[in-house]
Amino acid sequence: MRQSKLATKTLKETPKDADNISAALLIRAGFIDRIGSGIYSYLPLGWKILKKIEDIIREEMNAIGGQELLLPALHPREYWEATGRADLDAWYQVKSKQGKDFILGGTHEEIIAPVAKKMIFSYRDLPIYLYQIQTKFRDETRAKGGLLRGREFSMKDLYSFHVDQADLDSYYEKAKEAYFKVFNRCGIGNLTILTYSSGGPFSKFSHEFQTITESGEDTIYLCKKCNIAINKEIIDEQKTCPQCNGDDFEIKKAVEVGNIFKLGTKFSAPFEVNYLDEKGEKKDVIMGCYGMGPSRILGTIIEVHHDAKGMIWPEAIAPFQVHLLAVGESENVKNKAEELYKDLIAKNVEVLFDDRDESAGVKFADSDLLGIPYRVVVSEKTLKEDGVGLKKRSEGEEKIVKIEELINKLK
Amino acid sequence: MRQSKLATKTLKETPKDADNISAALLIRAGFIDRIGSGIYSYLPLGWKILKKIEDIIREEMNAIGGQELLLPALHPREYWEATGRADLDAWYQVKSKQGKDFILGGTHEEIIAPVAKKMIFSYRDLPIYLYQIQTKFRDETRAKGGLLRGREFSMKDLYSFHVDQADLDSYYEKAKEAYFKVFNRCGIGNLTILTYSSGGPFSKFSHEFQTITESGEDTIYLCKKCNIAINKEIIDEQKTCPQCNGDDFEIKKAVEVGNIFKLGTKFSAPFEVNYLDEKGEKKDVIMGCYGMGPSRILGTIIEVHHDAKGMIWPEAIAPFQVHLLAVGESENVKNKAEELYKDLIAKNVEVLFDDRDESAGVKFADSDLLGIPYRVVVSEKTLKEDGVGLKKRSEGEEKIVKIEELINKLK
Repeated sequence: MRQSKLATKTLKETPKDADNISAALLIRAGFIDRIGSGIYSYLPLGWKILKKIEDIIREEMNAIGGQELLLPALHPREYWEATGRADLDAWYQVKSKQGKDFILGGTHEEIIAPVAKKMIFSYRDLPIYLYQIQTKFRDETRAKGGLLRGREFSMKDLYSFHVDQADLDSYYEKAKEAYFKVFNRCGIGNLTILTYSSGGPFSKFSHEFQTITESGEDTIYLCKKCNIAINKEIIDEQKTCPQCNGDDFEIKKAVEVGNIFKLGTKFSAPFEVNYLDEKGEKKDVIMGCYGMGPSRILGTIIEVHHDAKGMIWPEAIAPFQVHLLAVGESENVKNKAEELYKDLIAKNVEVLFDDRDESAGVKFADSDLLGIPYRVVVSEKTLKEDGVGLKKRSEGEEKIVKIEELINKLK
Repeated sequence: MRQSKLATKTLKETPKDADNISAALLIRAGFIDRIGSGIYSYLPLGWKILKKIEDIIREEMNAIGGQELLLPALHPREYWEATGRADLDAWYQVKSKQGKDFILGGTHEEIIAPVAKKMIFSYRDLPIYLYQIQTKFRDETRAKGGLLRGREFSMKDLYSFHVDQADLDSYYEKAKEAYFKVFNRCGIGNLTILTYSSGGPFSKFSHEFQTITESGEDTIYLCKKCNIAINKEIIDEQKTCPQCNGDDFEIKKAVEVGNIFKLGTKFSAPFEVNYLDEKGEKKDVIMGCYGMGPSRILGTIIEVHHDAKGMIWPEAIAPFQVHLLAVGESENVKNKAEELYKDLIAKNVEVLFDDRDESAGVKFADSDLLGIPYRVVVSEKTLKEDGVGLKKRSEGEEKIVKIEELINKLK
């Protein structure tokens, strides 16, 4: 992609109304645009990243048997009356002009349960794992968290359906592992902590995946011995580490990037999602649910991967792998850079080519702000050595590399 | 994918509340599920098709310079007050619990214009083409069209931004061609007619892409000489074919699967989307918009491609290319079918394997209903000839093909 054609403009100044550092950098770099409090547009570069995160999530959900579907966002209110959750403060209530009441989907248990009922008849139809990546709407009183807390945000929600608790328990552990694979691939695995949180009638705990960062709204008690934590919300009831029983904690701020929950029969019972077991007896299906926020992950990545100059994207989700900069006015530089650009494309390298008529200073500053993993500079100076300047965004030093060796160096 | 694991159940009976033949077949086959009037879930097979249609649209929009982004669905009402469209009947009005007013996105001109304003400063920033594939919400009084007319539906909307009318005119023609590429790839090109419709202050006509089918809600006057039509809505003003000036029409029912429109400065003026020209003079940007409905295309494909037994998917968007049926109880059949299933997967063929304990009759009926392009049957009878039964869904005759020749026959 030529930067001269890219629908992106960087800002010199940090926007005044940005909620946190990730929102400030993403807006300044032209990756997202703020439409209103807690409501953002994903501009081409931000959207590329969101899709890459979603595709990683898809791969890992498919790997544990997930089947993707898409549920609607507009929910007839009667589905919510069945579980008594219709009047929760978190939901947007919508009335059509004919007086029909809807709730804007802030979560989808009330929709997936009746859908699953049409697929499940016998024990032979179980287990089954259904997920979607959907926009969720929540009527947040305080939506001042950039992509970390919005009124409208992207969410992956998987729902599992089982014959019994043991089968749910075993799948729940698999899902935990799949979650960490996603966080590792997105570059936040080492800072993301399995955190015990309040359960409900069907299990003592639920589990959150909390990424440690100062901008986090949650407080977690991190066990200094085990790499797990307890959410502050339940520390009065659960005073010791559930793994080692110790009570030596470090208190940290964190962002919840995922949450998994054993639902038991909470939703299968009201919607009569049941099955006939091997003896022909009718039983309620046992459910689990597994949430994860792609847009929140996007913001979290930048909360933990940035420096004073800008963003630093992990390679797996960067919008481009290489930022090619033509620096200087000479025809020789322009031609060599053009040639290299075409060559990189032919070799299937994702490359953003800064072919704009801008000064070296502007180009270097924008490159640091955008945070593409590899910067490749073509200038009179590098061409004197038959080379290009190669620098990883995450490392300090630029090195001159021969043009013919560049592709190997990038791999 | 093993059919025994697929989250799909077919129904023997046509659902009573289905709006039209495509909705009836898609629901019976377990591709979609009706949540309420005009509101559907896309179950795994339906979702696979919708994604394939969306990816074809992406490819063709990218080919004409489109850059993908994602705008929000929740629009602060003040954006709509700027154009005087806030009170249109078609929109869902939403109030947050703090009294903030939103409109659920039924179209996105009011959002894209202010976004584009932040990207466009000089003539050098133009032209630019931005598109998204988004869920749209419309408060339909009468939402009884299955996927052909819903309250919540998928839409691709591209917006183009130009220095002048001539540049818009030239891009508009390119977009027309790209639209027909999409419809051809989706298997409805030969029935889809460029249709002249009402324009507005900035052009005499807009253009619709109308697919001829009895279930269509629109009426078009098809010129018997040229392959273009006039929408009934404007036939009183435009009594002759705009191409040949003839008046020999055939009257047809049709579904509008796309619509393109020259907006001129209708949205750039209120949002002050302007640019400095080469002389440094400030001018309004000239806009075009280009809508297309992936979910409506999905329904339309089935309206035109089905028979008494079920659906007939065009290869480019079928959920699987091959439906492999193991027919009969013998271990030999089961083993050979298993082997072939693994072999097809290894060769990257998208295959659905009916490994269920069902009768031949059920399997054949389901296969016809699902409408996967190639049916491959493994039975004692075919194995006696070292072969499988191969039948195209769109053709009548099953032929015995040697197992080792199957892959070549599929290509």
